[in-house]
Amino acid sequence: MTNAVVLGAGIVGSVIAADLAEDGWDITVADRDPAALAKVRRLAGEGVTLLEQDLADPEVIGRLVAPFELVLGALPGHLGYEALRAVIRAGKDVCDISFMPEDARDHDALAREHGVTAVVDCGVAPGLSNLLCGHAVAMFDDCRMLLIQVGGLPVEPQPPFGYKAAFSPIDVLEEYVRPARYVTNGELRSVEALTDLEIIELPGVPPLESFLTDGLRSLADTLDVPFMKEKTLRYPGHARVMEAFREAGLFGTDPIQVGDVEVRPLDVTTAGLFPQWQYAEGEADLTVMRVEAEGMLGGVAGRLVWDLLDHADLERGFSSMARTTAFPCTLMARELVAGRIPTKGVLPPEALATDAALLERLLDGLAARGVVVQTSSNASG
Amino acid sequence: MTNAVVLGAGIVGSVIAADLAEDGWDITVADRDPAALAKVRRLAGEGVTLLEQDLADPEVIGRLVAPFELVLGALPGHLGYEALRAVIRAGKDVCDISFMPEDARDHDALAREHGVTAVVDCGVAPGLSNLLCGHAVAMFDDCRMLLIQVGGLPVEPQPPFGYKAAFSPIDVLEEYVRPARYVTNGELRSVEALTDLEIIELPGVPPLESFLTDGLRSLADTLDVPFMKEKTLRYPGHARVMEAFREAGLFGTDPIQVGDVEVRPLDVTTAGLFPQWQYAEGEADLTVMRVEAEGMLGGVAGRLVWDLLDHADLERGFSSMARTTAFPCTLMARELVAGRIPTKGVLPPEALATDAALLERLLDGLAARGVVVQTSSNASG
Repeated sequence: MTNAVVLGAGIVGSVIAADLAEDGWDITVADRDPAALAKVRRLAGEGVTLLEQDLADPEVIGRLVAPFELVLGALPGHLGYEALRAVIRAGKDVCDISFMPEDARDHDALAREHGVTAVVDCGVAPGLSNLLCGHAVAMFDDCRMLLIQVGGLPVEPQPPFGYKAAFSPIDVLEEYVRPARYVTNGELRSVEALTDLEIIELPGVPPLESFLTDGLRSLADTLDVPFMKEKTLRYPGHARVMEAFREAGLFGTDPIQVGDVEVRPLDVTTAGLFPQWQYAEGEADLTVMRVEAEGMLGGVAGRLVWDLLDHADLERGFSSMARTTAFPCTLMARELVAGRIPTKGVLPPEALATDAALLERLLDGLAARGVVVQTSSNASG
Repeated sequence: MTNAVVLGAGIVGSVIAADLAEDGWDITVADRDPAALAKVRRLAGEGVTLLEQDLADPEVIGRLVAPFELVLGALPGHLGYEALRAVIRAGKDVCDISFMPEDARDHDALAREHGVTAVVDCGVAPGLSNLLCGHAVAMFDDCRMLLIQVGGLPVEPQPPFGYKAAFSPIDVLEEYVRPARYVTNGELRSVEALTDLEIIELPGVPPLESFLTDGLRSLADTLDVPFMKEKTLRYPGHARVMEAFREAGLFGTDPIQVGDVEVRPLDVTTAGLFPQWQYAEGEADLTVMRVEAEGMLGGVAGRLVWDLLDHADLERGFSSMARTTAFPCTLMARELVAGRIPTKGVLPPEALATDAALLERLLDGLAARGVVVQTSSNASG
């Protein structure tokens, strides 16, 4: 019986715990928030051990993970980088979905030194998207183009936003403000986010708008593909509303003088905006992703498309966002524990993409959990 | 030579001054701002007398208007009500375009007592729109429906707002927040502004969106018409953006606590928004208005439509907003001075609408100034 610890009892951490506990793993979940831990108990059942610990302190993490065979990292982005270092220093293999702003690969040498395998960005996008892109590069003789389009959305959009945030809303806004990096003609460029707006039709959802965001992360330098973009999917109209907020300075983080006081516009905006973006109890979300690849295979132009569509599991209380983020992580954890990932170091998922059997097992595992990925291609793989 | 004073040297006041001075009137313009007065000199020429006076003080106004035959009121809305009272007390006839939040008709008894005629809300909408609505009521045996749709817009809209404000932007936001009154089945109701959204096609402009705002003003109780609405015209997408600002609390005027300080969200919003809404030097605006009326005439259902379209006069530096607001006021002033408005009291324009010849002279005067109003009808009038 595998003995593993989940760092973070948030909405993703609790689904990670539930999925592995259900499979007979001996799971401990650590978090500083007793309310979050109580929710894990409801979602993941009585078999899970709960540990109230402040994980902002890397030393606490180092001691905490010592007894476990494997670590699953599901901390908020701002804690992810230091937590990962502490886990690596403790010599523990880890699968991580923390959406950290830093580059986890900074810890690569440390991981190899400690004989650790750390699979990072191991959710849906980043995560499954990286695996699919890496697979396309491995499959084609010459992969020319990669396009990831992904969104987490309410099933029933309400104007004026047509959006709610199933994860940290401040991270969503960050993606609307930060310049979006993309690769064109082999060169890394960046433009304003929310641009390159178009409407796309995907199976099972109404027409959505698709716009550039800064989501390539490690792919921008691990894959040698001349055209690469990551775009965010929303119900039509969302991007323009967000652009208006941005252009009016309402996402600004520099304090401005207003009458007698100084205030950060972003703080005023989020105070009113985030309550509007909160999912109601029992409200359903969905996750939609298309990954497209184009390239040459045996002298013929080929094209690969993967379409993912997932809905919340309202019965179990798992949002679609949590499902699609947690399951790639728990499936990768099984690969690690089964000894099928021999490489040491900090690995973004695309590093494992040459192993077609691993990808197949992951897609089978997702399908078994109701996360359906449809593949279409005119290239023989 | 008529001797008249213009209260307020803003963008409308200066066009009022220019139009009347050009016609040989002896014009004085009063304002507290020397820069605004200097601009009047440029727009209205050397013949105009300039007077630096703080018009926030009604006693100053009372003394100031004494030597003049007629007063033209072009003050900011928040000064309009008190200024109007001071002018009436001084016994002077007045044409006013100040968009005051109060009801000018409160001063009606005072005006009759002093033998004064005060034509108020005498711009384009309110103003010409009131005259046209009143005319429709007079023409039909039974007027059933009145619809005013009006907008002042940049000729070249830029996303995300597609809008700039040719007059006080805070008054524009006020119209997006204040519940919109409308008349349905003879009852006065109110709903959230920015609702009842539709796209309409008008001659000479791209398709525009039309939404409810609180613009009926006096018409809501002076005309006995069972269906009446006033709607605002914008380039498509604007209403949703503004609704998002409103729903995120960003137009809120109650202070909220943000960190250690208290701040009014509206103040933070306007600090960033209004610079985006400012017309550049030499940038062209346009004014578009449709007034529709339906009713019965001789037992037959009839319909009247007036379409106004006007562009900025870039050569003279007159914005379209200023032209379409100032000219109805100066034309009405000529009617007053010619003794063709015998009624005393505070008169919204619809009170003068039974005089078909007056409306005709006004429309001719507008046409002579390049403000074209197309009339179409299937009712013989």
